[in-house]
Amino acid sequence: MENLRISGERLWASLMEMAKIGATPKGGVNRQALTDLDRQSRELFTEWCEAAGCSVSVDAMGNMFARRPGRDNDLPPVMTGSHLDTQPTGGKFDGAYGVMAGLEVIRTLNDLAIETEAPVEVAVWTNEEGCRFAPSMVGSGVFAGKFTLEEIYAATDPDGRTFGEELEGIGYKGELPAGGRPVGAFFEVHIEQGPVLEREDKTVGVVRGAQGLRWYDITVRGRESHAGTTPMESRKDALAAAAEMIAAAESIAVSRPPHTVVTVGMVEVRPNSRNTIPGEVYFTIDLRHPEEESLADTGERLAATMKAIAERRGVVLDFEEIVHARAVGFDPQCVAAVRAAAERAGYSHMDVISGAGHDACYMAGIAPTAMVFIPCADGISHNEIESATPEDAEAGCNVLLHAILDRAGTAS
Amino acid sequence: MENLRISGERLWASLMEMAKIGATPKGGVNRQALTDLDRQSRELFTEWCEAAGCSVSVDAMGNMFARRPGRDNDLPPVMTGSHLDTQPTGGKFDGAYGVMAGLEVIRTLNDLAIETEAPVEVAVWTNEEGCRFAPSMVGSGVFAGKFTLEEIYAATDPDGRTFGEELEGIGYKGELPAGGRPVGAFFEVHIEQGPVLEREDKTVGVVRGAQGLRWYDITVRGRESHAGTTPMESRKDALAAAAEMIAAAESIAVSRPPHTVVTVGMVEVRPNSRNTIPGEVYFTIDLRHPEEESLADTGERLAATMKAIAERRGVVLDFEEIVHARAVGFDPQCVAAVRAAAERAGYSHMDVISGAGHDACYMAGIAPTAMVFIPCADGISHNEIESATPEDAEAGCNVLLHAILDRAGTAS
Repeated sequence: MENLRISGERLWASLMEMAKIGATPKGGVNRQALTDLDRQSRELFTEWCEAAGCSVSVDAMGNMFARRPGRDNDLPPVMTGSHLDTQPTGGKFDGAYGVMAGLEVIRTLNDLAIETEAPVEVAVWTNEEGCRFAPSMVGSGVFAGKFTLEEIYAATDPDGRTFGEELEGIGYKGELPAGGRPVGAFFEVHIEQGPVLEREDKTVGVVRGAQGLRWYDITVRGRESHAGTTPMESRKDALAAAAEMIAAAESIAVSRPPHTVVTVGMVEVRPNSRNTIPGEVYFTIDLRHPEEESLADTGERLAATMKAIAERRGVVLDFEEIVHARAVGFDPQCVAAVRAAAERAGYSHMDVISGAGHDACYMAGIAPTAMVFIPCADGISHNEIESATPEDAEAGCNVLLHAILDRAGTAS
Repeated sequence: MENLRISGERLWASLMEMAKIGATPKGGVNRQALTDLDRQSRELFTEWCEAAGCSVSVDAMGNMFARRPGRDNDLPPVMTGSHLDTQPTGGKFDGAYGVMAGLEVIRTLNDLAIETEAPVEVAVWTNEEGCRFAPSMVGSGVFAGKFTLEEIYAATDPDGRTFGEELEGIGYKGELPAGGRPVGAFFEVHIEQGPVLEREDKTVGVVRGAQGLRWYDITVRGRESHAGTTPMESRKDALAAAAEMIAAAESIAVSRPPHTVVTVGMVEVRPNSRNTIPGEVYFTIDLRHPEEESLADTGERLAATMKAIAERRGVVLDFEEIVHARAVGFDPQCVAAVRAAAERAGYSHMDVISGAGHDACYMAGIAPTAMVFIPCADGISHNEIESATPEDAEAGCNVLLHAILDRAGTAS
């Protein structure tokens, strides 16, 4: 059993075939949730799964489950999967790799006629990306009880169409209730979307959990005035104050290694005129850390530092937390199963913390969960040039196979 | 002659009447260049000037000249004036005060039947603001030979209409050539548009010149990446680099008192997304100083500092100077005439340097020129709440009267 290997070639061929649906001229994929392209990708997935002997069911969120029966079908299934939707300028691997890897595991079990104790299911979660309909990860989120069906159905895209209408429109509003059934374990394999594995020259990331996240909205109000006629000492320059705050946010993050990351991604200056001293600046902070305590502590330090800068400069500060997603720790046994699988297969590996959110983060709330990462070139994702190697894709899938076998058990 | 005074009441009434054309609900004026409102203000001006016995001519730029003959009409005229166009959310005083003050001088000379040696002209310069058609100060600029008629005619507004068409459209493309005739002296009275006179509690600013100005466009290119998955040490954050540069620009200005002013007024972040590390940031610098040497030196220091920051951070810097308006020193004799007039009238006064550009800055290139400033509330201009007092408006106009008499001479 320990020498079992999936077919890297077949996995890669399936990935490349799936990437044709919504392919962009620059080599990426634009296959946003609940579009006709999303429907096409679901149909291809169904066709492949049925050919592999699975039954495919769809729940009220459009989540799909391809099921391979086990010896004891009363056991909760061991589940794997990810998503098929992409960003508008997404790549071939984000999401699709995790789904295709699940399918490849099933094909491999079929090839070798291995019967598992528990059934194995490959899930396709609806609208992981959240770019057309916010928020993200709603398929797994509803399944895990984090959102209600009603609130998600009511979400609208930029053209005003609702999620519920569009889900029905592509024919994937299923009969099954979304969630409410036991899952034995959940594994998700994904590209890292960061540079650590590549930098450390490791093939497999054993994902121990996901960072917590806090989002802040900051507004600095000074006094708009003429750039030529207002002496430096008479200014209340909202942008000069914001620049000092943005520099301080970076320094705070750097002073708390190794896991603290702080990003100011968005800035709006008003009136944003070359010869007017800015009267108001809005900017955002994205703060992440694997531990809740550190997250809270850094958040307080950011707030206090910005308050001090604002007071010293005589500008008005509005510092508001708008999102707090708690840090997630994955199941130690599932994590150990992943680590052991990588170890046995002889892949170089390291423990990592996911910087991004994944469907697995919600699944961790209702089932023992872990993730497997593989490197992606330059850590780039959500980009048409997103890239991973066939060898790494194969390695991640082999680790997934053995982690699933570990949790599902073999009947023979 | 020394006790001559203009009528502050009549001046104020004319100012308030003119401010009705394009009046905004917030108490300001929106009377942009070459609009129908601009036409209305020109017609009112013409009506008043003709009633005061002046002939009004219009040149090919739409510049208007109300002429009161002197004893010797072969002498070049002593000219005063400013502009009647405003910013979209402009005030009642910027420009209009200088024109109405010129008219009030003529009315006063008429009341007292004073004949000047040289003729006196009140100029209305077309499109000083430059907000509808860039650049600014083109009426005086063409008159002084800084621009050609053709290039200015070709300028377009945001709707694609050309300056030439619109000037013709309001009926003010005149027959006279723009410029090319001698001017004996030029005086412009204006609100300060800055806080210095108010802060120093002075009624009159004797303007010795105008600051030089350098405008820079700066682009910082880093590497766009995921806010959650990119460790601090792997980042090339274009915004963190720009924030450090913006803070440094302010420090450099503060370290070079009293006249150096540096403003970053505009920032554009790309992709400007909350959870993406910015890959590119564009920002502007507006640097001003009354002396060219200091301006050049500060410009070099800004460039060197930003280059060092970019190199240390491994981001790419593009630092480009796009405008260099040289510092202007006004004519010492005209400046002395202004100072003496303020002195004799018993007004508190101080020498100042104009922070903003004015039509007088171009006129200084072809005629002995000076300016008179009066305070404006909180130094605020280009704003509907722009405000000045009747007493200060009267004082500035009295100074203007005596400076004009000094240069035009009296025939009696």
